[in-house]
Amino acid sequence: MDKNEVNIGLIGFGTIGAGVVEIFNKNQDILSKKVGKQVNLKKVADLDITTDRGVKIDSKLLTTNVNDVLEDEDIDIVIELIGGYEPAKTFILKAMKNGKHVVSANKALIAKHWEELIATANENNVRFSFEASVGGGIPLLQPLNESLAANRFEAIYGIMNGTANYILTKMSLEGSKFDDVLKIAQEKGYAEADPTFDIEGHDTAQKLIILAKLAFGEYVPQENFYVEGISQINAEDIEFASKELNYVIKLLGIAKKTEDSLEIRVHPTFMEKNHLLASVNDVFNAVYIVGDFVGPVMLYGQGAGRMATASAVVGDCLDIIFNESKRISYGPVISQVNKIKDIGDTISKFYISLNVLDKPGVLQTITKILDKNGISIESITQKSSLENEEAPIIIVSHETKEKNIQEAIAKVNDLDEVKGEIKLIRILGD
Amino acid sequence: MDKNEVNIGLIGFGTIGAGVVEIFNKNQDILSKKVGKQVNLKKVADLDITTDRGVKIDSKLLTTNVNDVLEDEDIDIVIELIGGYEPAKTFILKAMKNGKHVVSANKALIAKHWEELIATANENNVRFSFEASVGGGIPLLQPLNESLAANRFEAIYGIMNGTANYILTKMSLEGSKFDDVLKIAQEKGYAEADPTFDIEGHDTAQKLIILAKLAFGEYVPQENFYVEGISQINAEDIEFASKELNYVIKLLGIAKKTEDSLEIRVHPTFMEKNHLLASVNDVFNAVYIVGDFVGPVMLYGQGAGRMATASAVVGDCLDIIFNESKRISYGPVISQVNKIKDIGDTISKFYISLNVLDKPGVLQTITKILDKNGISIESITQKSSLENEEAPIIIVSHETKEKNIQEAIAKVNDLDEVKGEIKLIRILGD
Repeated sequence: MDKNEVNIGLIGFGTIGAGVVEIFNKNQDILSKKVGKQVNLKKVADLDITTDRGVKIDSKLLTTNVNDVLEDEDIDIVIELIGGYEPAKTFILKAMKNGKHVVSANKALIAKHWEELIATANENNVRFSFEASVGGGIPLLQPLNESLAANRFEAIYGIMNGTANYILTKMSLEGSKFDDVLKIAQEKGYAEADPTFDIEGHDTAQKLIILAKLAFGEYVPQENFYVEGISQINAEDIEFASKELNYVIKLLGIAKKTEDSLEIRVHPTFMEKNHLLASVNDVFNAVYIVGDFVGPVMLYGQGAGRMATASAVVGDCLDIIFNESKRISYGPVISQVNKIKDIGDTISKFYISLNVLDKPGVLQTITKILDKNGISIESITQKSSLENEEAPIIIVSHETKEKNIQEAIAKVNDLDEVKGEIKLIRILGD
Repeated sequence: MDKNEVNIGLIGFGTIGAGVVEIFNKNQDILSKKVGKQVNLKKVADLDITTDRGVKIDSKLLTTNVNDVLEDEDIDIVIELIGGYEPAKTFILKAMKNGKHVVSANKALIAKHWEELIATANENNVRFSFEASVGGGIPLLQPLNESLAANRFEAIYGIMNGTANYILTKMSLEGSKFDDVLKIAQEKGYAEADPTFDIEGHDTAQKLIILAKLAFGEYVPQENFYVEGISQINAEDIEFASKELNYVIKLLGIAKKTEDSLEIRVHPTFMEKNHLLASVNDVFNAVYIVGDFVGPVMLYGQGAGRMATASAVVGDCLDIIFNESKRISYGPVISQVNKIKDIGDTISKFYISLNVLDKPGVLQTITKILDKNGISIESITQKSSLENEEAPIIIVSHETKEKNIQEAIAKVNDLDEVKGEIKLIRILGD
C-alpha cells in the first residue's frame, strides 16, 4: 500500500454492502482527501448481482466469482459482509493468506473463531478490523483498544441489541405486552420473522465476547456464560418497578472484573431511572465502560442499520490505510483474568415477583426462607388480591449471591401457597 | 522508535502531570504489553520539584531544566502539561523541531495557535496529539477523526465544561440560585476562585474550535463567533421551563453545517428532557455528533479531573507508539465550509421571559411586535402579578431567525410597560 491508490474489494452486496457502495458514491472525495490517497471500490462480489440494491453501481464492478476479489493482486483490503460461518470464514482466511487486510461486521464468526482469525491475520502480517461487529456505527472497539488503552478496565455494561431495546422501550412507555410489541417490531422491520437470536440474548452475548476479549484479554466462548433473554418479561413487572421503585429495564451484556476473576453474563436488568443507560431508548445501543483511571465512559449511537454499520466498515478501511504500520489487529491483549466466575457466585440486588394465596402467615413463611438463605430484604410489597384470591408479592433484596437467591427461590417455589412462576430480575448495582 | 524501548519526557508536574506519573506507577506493565515495547517515563521537568505531588516518583527522574527533556536524544515523546500560551508554545515547537512527538492537553494554546502547531509538527514529521484537550478522558478526537471518518459531519452539540454543567444541574435539581451554587462549587473545588473562564463559555468555545476544525475542516478563531455564558440564568426560568415546558438547560457548544456555511456558537440552551444530552449531569461532559451515515453518536464521560485527563494523555502516547507510521496529526482535513454564518442568520426556537406592568392591552402590544417581525408564537403564559404589580410573561416562539428576534426584543424593550431585563434563551431544535 505504498502506492498512491488503495483498492478495496467487497464480498456481499446485501443491505450493509449496498450501504458501503452508497458511502463511496457520496463521500469518496472526502475519504480520499482524509487519507491522502485515492481510495477505490474495485470489485463487488455476490452470487446475486441482478437484484436492484437501490444504489448506483458501475456494472463492471460486479462479479459472481469471489476469486475476482480474493485473487486480484491490486486489491489491498477485502470487506466481508456475507455473514454466517461459512463460506465467510474460508473467504476471510484466504484473503489474509493472499496478503490482504480484512474488514468484517461478522460478529457470530468472530465471537466463535476469534483465535484462528486473529492468528491468521498476524501470521500473514495483515490487519483484521471489525468495528462494525459490535454496536454498529458506534466507535467502540477502537476507543476501547486505543484511546482508553492507559486503563485497566473494571466493567462493561452494554445495551447492544436494538430489537430487544425497542421492545423493552415500547413495553415501558406504553405498558404493552411483549407479544404485541414484538408483532409491531416485526411489522416495522425492527425484528426478524424468527426473533430468537435477538430477544433471547444470543446476539448480545456474541458482542459481549468481543468486548470482553478486548477489555480483559480473555476469550470466553458463549457456552461458558449465562445468557437470559427478554421473552419472559411481563408488562406488570415493568410498570410496578417504574412506578414504585423508579426502575427501568434493559437487556444488558455485563462483563466485570472482581479481583482476578471475570463475571460475564447477559440478562434483563433493572436500573435506576437516572442511570445514563436508562435513557438509551428504541433501537439505539450504548456501551458503558468503567476504567480505573478514566472512570465511566459511555458510547452511544445506532447499533444496527445499513448506513450506520456501513459507516463503521468504511471507517475501518480508512484506519487501515491511514495507519499502515499498525500490524496487529486490536493489540496484543494480555489476559488479566485467572478464572471466569460462575453466575452463582456473582452478586446482585434482586427483584422477585410471585403470586401467593391470600392467607395469613404466607408472607412470614417466605421471608423466613429468605432470611435462612442469608438474604436481607430492602422492600416488600403485597398487592391486593386478584379475583382468584391470589395476591402478587414484590420483593426487592439487598445485594446477595446469586446462588443464595436461587436456593431460596427453589424452596419458596415448593410452598403450596405459591402459585405460578416466580420471576427473578437482577438489579444493577452502583 | 524502531527500538524496543520508548522514552517519554513530561513537562509540568502539576495535577494532571502527577496523574500521568500515577498511571505509569500502576499500569506500566499493561501499557508496555499493549504496544509490545517497553514504555518508560524518563524525565519529569517542573520549576518546582520539591512539593509533594501525592505520587511516588524516583527523584532521579525530576529536573528543573526543561532542556533535560527537550534535548535528550533518547526521549521520543514529550508531554506538555504546563498550560497557558508561553512558555508552553516555545517548548512544544522546540520539541517538534528536535524530532520528538508531542502530546498536550493545552486547549487554549491549540485553539489559538492551531495552524502554527500543526504545520510545525508536519514539517518535522512528528505527531502532535491532544485528545485530552477536549472532553478530558472521553474518546472524542480519535473517533471523530478515525472511527467516524467515513462521514460528512452535520452537527456537533457539546456539554464540555464540568463547572457550568455542575452549576446548571444543581440549579435545576434543587431550585438554587446561581450565586449560591457557584459558592458551593468553589468550596468543592469544582469551580475556580475566578470562574469567569468556565461560566462565561470561553472554555467551551476553545474546545468547540478544536472539534469544529476536526469535523468541518474549518478553523474559526474565538473572536469570530458568539459566546454567551450562564451567569445570567435565573432559577425561575429553569423551574418554569422544567415544569411547564418539560425542558432542561445546558451550556452547549454548537457547530452545525447548513449547506456550505458553518454555524458555530456557545450559549445556554433549553432542550427536551428526553434528549440524551439532558441526562448528562453534574461535572460530566458529553458530545453529541451527527454524521450523514452514522446518524447521531454520543460520547460521554468525565470532562476534567486529574486521572481522566491523564488517561487521555497516556492514551495519546500509546497511539503514537502503536501507529508509528501515522505521520499526520488528526488527518489532513479539508474545509467543507465556504462561510461562517453570522449568529443573526441562525435559526432557533426561543424562550423569552419578561416582566410587564399588569395593565390591559400590554400582551396584545407585544404579540403585535413579534408578529410584525415575522415571529410566530408556540405558547405564551402570563403569570399572576408580583407584589409590585408587575406580571411575568413567558413566550416560546416557533423557529425563527435570530436577528428577527433581536429586533423584536429591542422594540419590546422600548415599551414603557416592560420592566427590567428581557431574558432570551435559545431552544435546541430537532
